[in-house]
Amino acid sequence: MKKIETCFTPALYSLYHNEFSNVVVIDIMRATTSICAAFAAGAKKIIPVGSIIDAKKMKDDGYILAAERDGIVLDFADFGNSPNLFTPEKVKGKTVAYSTTNGTQAIKMASCSRNLIIGAFVNLSKVVEFLNNDEADVLLFCSGWKNKFNIEDTLCAGAIADKLISSGKFSTNCDSTFVAIDLWHLASIDIMKYIEKASHRKRLKGIVTDDVVTYCHSLDLVSVLPVYKTDSIINILN
Amino acid sequence: MKKIETCFTPALYSLYHNEFSNVVVIDIMRATTSICAAFAAGAKKIIPVGSIIDAKKMKDDGYILAAERDGIVLDFADFGNSPNLFTPEKVKGKTVAYSTTNGTQAIKMASCSRNLIIGAFVNLSKVVEFLNNDEADVLLFCSGWKNKFNIEDTLCAGAIADKLISSGKFSTNCDSTFVAIDLWHLASIDIMKYIEKASHRKRLKGIVTDDVVTYCHSLDLVSVLPVYKTDSIINILN
Repeated sequence: MKKIETCFTPALYSLYHNEFSNVVVIDIMRATTSICAAFAAGAKKIIPVGSIIDAKKMKDDGYILAAERDGIVLDFADFGNSPNLFTPEKVKGKTVAYSTTNGTQAIKMASCSRNLIIGAFVNLSKVVEFLNNDEADVLLFCSGWKNKFNIEDTLCAGAIADKLISSGKFSTNCDSTFVAIDLWHLASIDIMKYIEKASHRKRLKGIVTDDVVTYCHSLDLVSVLPVYKTDSIINILN
Repeated sequence: MKKIETCFTPALYSLYHNEFSNVVVIDIMRATTSICAAFAAGAKKIIPVGSIIDAKKMKDDGYILAAERDGIVLDFADFGNSPNLFTPEKVKGKTVAYSTTNGTQAIKMASCSRNLIIGAFVNLSKVVEFLNNDEADVLLFCSGWKNKFNIEDTLCAGAIADKLISSGKFSTNCDSTFVAIDLWHLASIDIMKYIEKASHRKRLKGIVTDDVVTYCHSLDLVSVLPVYKTDSIINILN
């Protein structure tokens, strides 16, 4: 039986790292949701960028740059970090450099894994299908908020873990995973109501519209499976 | 309105530390439960000890020593880390040196706080009463398991936060606290059933008897409030 573990924040990642596991990086509001949206809009490749200095350099080198910190678009970026900004007009056939507060940092941190998969509610079934068909254990890696635990990433980890265990191919003895599943069962009755209490939902009020938040918490809107390979992310279902 | 935050593991403590807050250290199975039991049995003082080397030194200096690692009593200790071991015959009127895998480490880490309080299910109401009567914000600090999240400490944090918010004197905007409260509501219907899935419950099977686990998850069994003051813990209700 394959095993599942859940890491609640990047600050705990070193306790869970295993180069033989498949890692699913989750940043629901908004990096991993936006990466899925970008590929659904026809992006060719996404290059995650850690620091603001490196982001500026990518822009100077001629890349399209999507970048934000603390929810706010960086002034030298082409656009920010919401899934609706990654339109076919802007990204189709293009390579996009991308830098965010939490998600792209987690992606860089987990780059030495068997497969590093970009997971979100919007591509949940594609993530589950891939993990079920591969032979490796799974680490669900929540990006959190500045190394703190957050609700929405945990709920998505719970939704993925729940489906994997239901498939009969996975089990867990990880307290974080048990709790993520229980929270998902509690929240999924009315996820938009549940998410109202999340600190990042409150933080983003006035920065993003409600339909962006709804998009971020909707299941299986896009048929993409973004995977990190040698410094950039591609959609392996392309 | 006073604020509540919850820190899920010692690895995240630096993100939450605030010297002006009251900190409640929680290690349900078993350090903070056992400290409460020790004071209920008449212990005079408990000295938390971090390292095994320091624990040996305290023993050599003539202190009674309670000490374990990974659930197993250290061979040079007088006894281990279960609440039923701290009997009046062993500890009444005595100073006990105490070293455990997680709890005593967390206590030492949080020693520079306004008040460092030892919290457990067994003294829950006394903890809540103290926090309600003081003017400071509160950090609920779960000891976890080797820096990972654990279920039972989180449930106790949720139980404390729930009572504090119900009192009308506290609020929170902390995702960890929201989740701890929701889990407590879910688990408190039948806590002994819920705790069966906890990894540390499984780890302790064969090491401690079921009645120790039941004791650890029972509310308000003892009227003690252990507080850390200048290198040792005393019961301020004495």
